[in-house]
Amino acid sequence: MKQSKMLIPTLREMPSDAQVISHALLMRAGYVRQVSAGIYAYLPLANRVLEKLKNIMREEFEEIGAVELLAPTLLTADLWRESGRYDTYGEDLYKLKNRDSSDFILGPTHEETMTALVRDEITSYKKLPLNVYQIATKYRDEKRPRYGLLRGREFIMKDGYSFHADQDSLDETYQDYKKAYEKIFERAGLTFKPIIGDGGAMGGKDSQEFMAITDDRTDLEKWLVLSKNITSIDEIPESVLADIKEELGKWLVAGEDTIVYADGGDYAANLEMATSQFDPKAAYTEELELEKVATPDAKTIDEVAEFLKVDQSQTIKTLVFRADDELVVVLLHGNDQLNEVKLTNYLGADLVEAASEADVEAAFGVHFGSLGPVGLKEVRIIADREVELVKNAIVGANEDGFHYKNVNIGRDFEVSEFVDLRTVNEGEVSPDGRGTLKFARGIEIGHIFKLGTRYSEAMNANVLDANGRAIPMIMGCYGIGVSRLLSAILEQFARIYVEKTPKEEYKFSWSINFPKELAPFDIHLVPVNIKDETAMALTAELETKLRAKGYQVLVDDRNERAGVKFADSDLIGLPVRVTIGKKAAEGIVEVKIRATGEVVEINKDELVNTIEILNQN
Amino acid sequence: MKQSKMLIPTLREMPSDAQVISHALLMRAGYVRQVSAGIYAYLPLANRVLEKLKNIMREEFEEIGAVELLAPTLLTADLWRESGRYDTYGEDLYKLKNRDSSDFILGPTHEETMTALVRDEITSYKKLPLNVYQIATKYRDEKRPRYGLLRGREFIMKDGYSFHADQDSLDETYQDYKKAYEKIFERAGLTFKPIIGDGGAMGGKDSQEFMAITDDRTDLEKWLVLSKNITSIDEIPESVLADIKEELGKWLVAGEDTIVYADGGDYAANLEMATSQFDPKAAYTEELELEKVATPDAKTIDEVAEFLKVDQSQTIKTLVFRADDELVVVLLHGNDQLNEVKLTNYLGADLVEAASEADVEAAFGVHFGSLGPVGLKEVRIIADREVELVKNAIVGANEDGFHYKNVNIGRDFEVSEFVDLRTVNEGEVSPDGRGTLKFARGIEIGHIFKLGTRYSEAMNANVLDANGRAIPMIMGCYGIGVSRLLSAILEQFARIYVEKTPKEEYKFSWSINFPKELAPFDIHLVPVNIKDETAMALTAELETKLRAKGYQVLVDDRNERAGVKFADSDLIGLPVRVTIGKKAAEGIVEVKIRATGEVVEINKDELVNTIEILNQN
Repeated sequence: MKQSKMLIPTLREMPSDAQVISHALLMRAGYVRQVSAGIYAYLPLANRVLEKLKNIMREEFEEIGAVELLAPTLLTADLWRESGRYDTYGEDLYKLKNRDSSDFILGPTHEETMTALVRDEITSYKKLPLNVYQIATKYRDEKRPRYGLLRGREFIMKDGYSFHADQDSLDETYQDYKKAYEKIFERAGLTFKPIIGDGGAMGGKDSQEFMAITDDRTDLEKWLVLSKNITSIDEIPESVLADIKEELGKWLVAGEDTIVYADGGDYAANLEMATSQFDPKAAYTEELELEKVATPDAKTIDEVAEFLKVDQSQTIKTLVFRADDELVVVLLHGNDQLNEVKLTNYLGADLVEAASEADVEAAFGVHFGSLGPVGLKEVRIIADREVELVKNAIVGANEDGFHYKNVNIGRDFEVSEFVDLRTVNEGEVSPDGRGTLKFARGIEIGHIFKLGTRYSEAMNANVLDANGRAIPMIMGCYGIGVSRLLSAILEQFARIYVEKTPKEEYKFSWSINFPKELAPFDIHLVPVNIKDETAMALTAELETKLRAKGYQVLVDDRNERAGVKFADSDLIGLPVRVTIGKKAAEGIVEVKIRATGEVVEINKDELVNTIEILNQN
Repeated sequence: MKQSKMLIPTLREMPSDAQVISHALLMRAGYVRQVSAGIYAYLPLANRVLEKLKNIMREEFEEIGAVELLAPTLLTADLWRESGRYDTYGEDLYKLKNRDSSDFILGPTHEETMTALVRDEITSYKKLPLNVYQIATKYRDEKRPRYGLLRGREFIMKDGYSFHADQDSLDETYQDYKKAYEKIFERAGLTFKPIIGDGGAMGGKDSQEFMAITDDRTDLEKWLVLSKNITSIDEIPESVLADIKEELGKWLVAGEDTIVYADGGDYAANLEMATSQFDPKAAYTEELELEKVATPDAKTIDEVAEFLKVDQSQTIKTLVFRADDELVVVLLHGNDQLNEVKLTNYLGADLVEAASEADVEAAFGVHFGSLGPVGLKEVRIIADREVELVKNAIVGANEDGFHYKNVNIGRDFEVSEFVDLRTVNEGEVSPDGRGTLKFARGIEIGHIFKLGTRYSEAMNANVLDANGRAIPMIMGCYGIGVSRLLSAILEQFARIYVEKTPKEEYKFSWSINFPKELAPFDIHLVPVNIKDETAMALTAELETKLRAKGYQVLVDDRNERAGVKFADSDLIGLPVRVTIGKKAAEGIVEVKIRATGEVVEINKDELVNTIEILNQN
């Protein structure tokens, strides 16, 4: 393919509105353009990567018997009224009317459409399981679209749906999908972790999220690629390294989620779901006598602990939440932070929010800062399970300026439920005892759910079972964010190239280092001067030979200066660059392997072998 | 691929709401399902055909240097306001607001988007030409969606746009596209004609439409496929043939347009644009004396000609049109029908419509039925060019109950313009003199336009030319209706299969006879009884061997009766069916070639060769 015919509008500078490196480089290297906020055009290079991603997915899904179809995106509201989501989905749902004033939506997801499709065609358990998917455009009217393709209003998803007559069949398909997803992300070259997900909003019981891990970019060995005349990072002057570090640090670490994973084990979960090992055996401690102490002006845990000169671990925090119409008192060990997702999931209420100071005063007649569990009447008190282990604790005395010392559960107040409500910390032991917990940032690239009968019951999607009884189909759903994968890949494969000029100056620049199976082309042929007929003839010869070997080749046939060509080539980021320069007459070209920075001069006849060998790393 | 895992919901009967055979069979063979009026889901079989169509297009477009990208479908109204189409496009445009109350549309076409994209990136003629395309979903809020995929509200288009600095470059790309389109439609196996199109609504000057020709289904040789035990159509009893003809005639001949083509020449045009050879040399005829004759109660041309006992060719029709605010008198030879598109294009007014009776009476003081050109004052009179040849004509006398005889142009009234305004008839000579005109029905499957600067001027899409002057880019646009191609293919490849039962009864049924390059799979393996382990082992062996040879194989692994399996197989319409029955133990299977009805029993080892030879026709 001739570069002059492609639309690859590279930019000289990073776009000023980009906050993450993937967004900046997708723009700068001419892969995408924003058409309106959160809505992008995928230019030819991006389109080629997307097609490669789609093909990888198709191959892996065929392996697990999933079948591709294509549902519409302009959907009648009626379907969404059946499931109840038309009114509850919120402002992210694009709504419109057609010429007959009927209500439509632009599909953000397709549970309803697929459930209705299968419901209308399948009546017997004998025709199950069915496992269908599509790769299609989705719409979500994000309040704040940002980070390029990571949070857009129009985006490409792979969404799959499976239908089963029994739970075992769903479990099997769910496991198949898990393996297929792992293969897909491995083939995409990604570093990722499958973690325990929060299926809350989708109504799922069992779910797993696939997170592409993002890095804080402090490890220079990983983030720099050195040109062949630089021996090691140590050789680079401190001032240049400082500039590089500043550049690396300038870009937000992408990823909306904090992932907790076990270093030395398999455990991984979203921070909102993560838990750590809990040892319920407390050491025996003698219960001391309850004592009320004056704590003037000390309201926060910090202030109280400091005033009383004790460790925070000796205190219990008292929080109040409103769960729908009920006030609930929540106790936490003084060291710990509440995990609101855990609390919300445990309470099972539609709305859980911190109670206001006015609520608390009205209910208990005390100010926030002096609230404590001793003496509270007619209120549900739940505590994190760690609280049970705290003896002779310090709590608020429900009287301004005073706290209780030596408070003990059972003797001084009652707790109705002990549950896991705290946010875990790095360094704690994994819940299965294998490994210690570490935190990382991650981009959600896939999600698999056991939906159960949430949609089939609401939409009357039944089949007859072996006994002739109508049963709701059991469903699973499986998503991959295809366009956001492109961003995730760039977050992991953006690199800073450092080169030493003939004048011994060190220069550095951003570049994409595309994984082999996804690069828009395999090889970039760059004739330095298109007016050099010998070089152009050699270029044409190499193009023909390389294409015959199955390589996809981009030829920079543009009448541009060498500097412009090389800069664009680095930005575009194909795995191999072949420069056809002055030695073309001798049949000699220069091969550069992007991932390693390696550069060799070779004879045209050895080109194919050389590429294969060098590009194996 | 296992059929039990595919969603192929075949129907026992034709759907009651289908009027054309393609719609009926797409539904009945389980290729598509309607989700709401004019909005369809492409089930797995249809999706596979669509993917094959896309790949054919991609290959042919790469040949002409067109580059694929993907623009969004949710578009800001602002772009369409720039071009002026936001307000003029009409009710077919889906409009919606986002959460910030900004106006958006769902793209029915992408001239604006692509023009803006290229405008924002390309500033010099040196970077032109550029030739980009996408294959994507489009939206049009059709007043009456119908005929399945032929007129839908959500559909798949291939839309391409080219950008040029000069007209020659556009002409070259336009010709490239013409050839690419011809190759694509040939590879799809279609009978089609490129015709002169009416680019009116798109603002194009030069345009060509590609029409898939539809047939009136009277030629039984073409429409029937006979089973191997029927020698010829002549053998089929009259009563069965009558039923078959009734069934064939039951379905509307699809195609919104009448196409005029030269039998024995290259000329082809939409009826609305078609013209025929015009010989301006009239035979000399002596002008007779003007005469007013009473024609009581004779108002139409028919009535007047009959009353005066002359041929209609001796009369001139007088019509009145309102072109915006002006009344225009239009004269036609008595034999001819007005072509309103020609009139509208000629007048160049925004709105051209027949004048009302009240308009005519107010302007000329006469009733419709007695209107004639003689004595009309201060009005523009235009005539079809054939009118100039009529001597001693009969026209209305502008007086109820009277006509003039022997009227002659120049002597009795003046005509300001002679132009081609008539609708051509079958049997006339092609305008280039080569061949006589014939009519056919056609489905528009592609359209190429020279847009010129319609969009670049409105949207300020300029480049600097070689002299540093800003010039608007010259554009072309090129569309293929991808989803409607599926319907066009079925309109041409639906067949009635006739078979003779062992009881010598003749039965017939509809079936799809998919062209080889587009069939969702190449081969249908049908083991008759899935409980027969020998047959199933042979099926598995054949599947492996055929796949290794590069064939795509669908295996009917369903536990269904043989009759159901064969009926479904005929509906689905794969080119080759291999039945694995009782002779499986001997390694013998039955191969049926769908296009010819040929059936042979062969040994498993000869299967691949046999398929290749039989399937060559």
